[in-house]
Amino acid sequence: MPSTPHIEKHFTSSDTVRDIVIGMADGLTVPFALAAGLSGAVDATRVVIAAGLAEVAAGSIAMGLGGYLAARTDAEHYASEKAREERETNEVPEVEAAEVAEIFRGYGLAPETVTAVVDAIRSDRTKWVDFMMRFELGLEEPDPRRASRSAITIASSYIAGGLIPLAPYFFLPNAREGLAVSTAVTLLALLVFGYVKGRFTTDRPVRSAWQTVTVGGLAAAAAFVIAKLVA
Amino acid sequence: MPSTPHIEKHFTSSDTVRDIVIGMADGLTVPFALAAGLSGAVDATRVVIAAGLAEVAAGSIAMGLGGYLAARTDAEHYASEKAREERETNEVPEVEAAEVAEIFRGYGLAPETVTAVVDAIRSDRTKWVDFMMRFELGLEEPDPRRASRSAITIASSYIAGGLIPLAPYFFLPNAREGLAVSTAVTLLALLVFGYVKGRFTTDRPVRSAWQTVTVGGLAAAAAFVIAKLVA
Repeated sequence: MPSTPHIEKHFTSSDTVRDIVIGMADGLTVPFALAAGLSGAVDATRVVIAAGLAEVAAGSIAMGLGGYLAARTDAEHYASEKAREERETNEVPEVEAAEVAEIFRGYGLAPETVTAVVDAIRSDRTKWVDFMMRFELGLEEPDPRRASRSAITIASSYIAGGLIPLAPYFFLPNAREGLAVSTAVTLLALLVFGYVKGRFTTDRPVRSAWQTVTVGGLAAAAAFVIAKLVA
Repeated sequence: MPSTPHIEKHFTSSDTVRDIVIGMADGLTVPFALAAGLSGAVDATRVVIAAGLAEVAAGSIAMGLGGYLAARTDAEHYASEKAREERETNEVPEVEAAEVAEIFRGYGLAPETVTAVVDAIRSDRTKWVDFMMRFELGLEEPDPRRASRSAITIASSYIAGGLIPLAPYFFLPNAREGLAVSTAVTLLALLVFGYVKGRFTTDRPVRSAWQTVTVGGLAAAAAFVIAKLVA
């Protein structure tokens, strides 16, 4: 809609960066923690690998399709709210105009200015509906291709993240050695990932790096203790 | 801030509902899929239970702490953008006033109305900053207690969801019987969860129910095939 006003954004990490972060944060953490937990409880590397890969398959599908459905629900929510605003500006224009007036009265505009603003906005129905969507409801129009792109990005990031902690178990003779190398490799990967994520989403990348490592470490420690107690 | 204008919301599911959905959707799906996958590959119920519980521990910590950090990043992002708007309305008020004018010119207001609106908004610095945050950047002030509440809600929902598919393995003599009962119980739980979620977030609960079951079923099938191939 080129006719609607452009709104400047200071900084928001792009949707793709957000999806990569979502997928990779869990992908690096949960398969690592599960494999670490199991390798303290069972000797067979084969079982650790089977469980790790099964987790990566399940997690990437659950998160990817979950992201797909969430994006589609957002798009449908936007469309249904927009249809509702279109209906209301048509059927009860005075009520909707009063809602616009209410917003501006709250900012201390004089009554005659409020009237002038409301009259200008309601003179063009497309812009009026756009105004209600953006300023009354705070909703931005979602990109229609977002759902499937989001699903693929989240799922591939989960798989890419999940294969890093599992790789050492493929190449090393037993689960104990696999665990040692997997821990070293994964903590390093979490450090790098946390730092890069922090560069994109905050202005404190170093703090983000050690936070990411702490989450991964805590998850792995909890999984290790529980698997050891049970098995 | 009671002085800032009230903005009506049509319908947004509350943050708590959103957190329960996030935690439980993955909690019901991934431990179920992992246990199903492993019980097709190893005979020992003990290993299935150990892996399942390790996954629940890792997943709930990763998702709960992930939610905590995400909420804190949101709050910090809001605070830093607000500080920036406060600085800019102080140091370069004409630039910021021009940005307000730009928004309203886009809605077809006459120049003298634009001037009146801009003058009214900039006459009160608190409201001016509030206007920029809400209408220029589209940011709402986050609840400061949100981060820790979000972490606890997501983690407990993940644990609650994850224990449902694992419970049958505790009580049944072998992994094969565990798998059969776990599958029946979990698909039923996914159906109910999807329906209730759909009632909260869309107006099509039945579609939401079968979508949730499909995601869980696909994740479990993928985990089953992969674990069988590897182990």
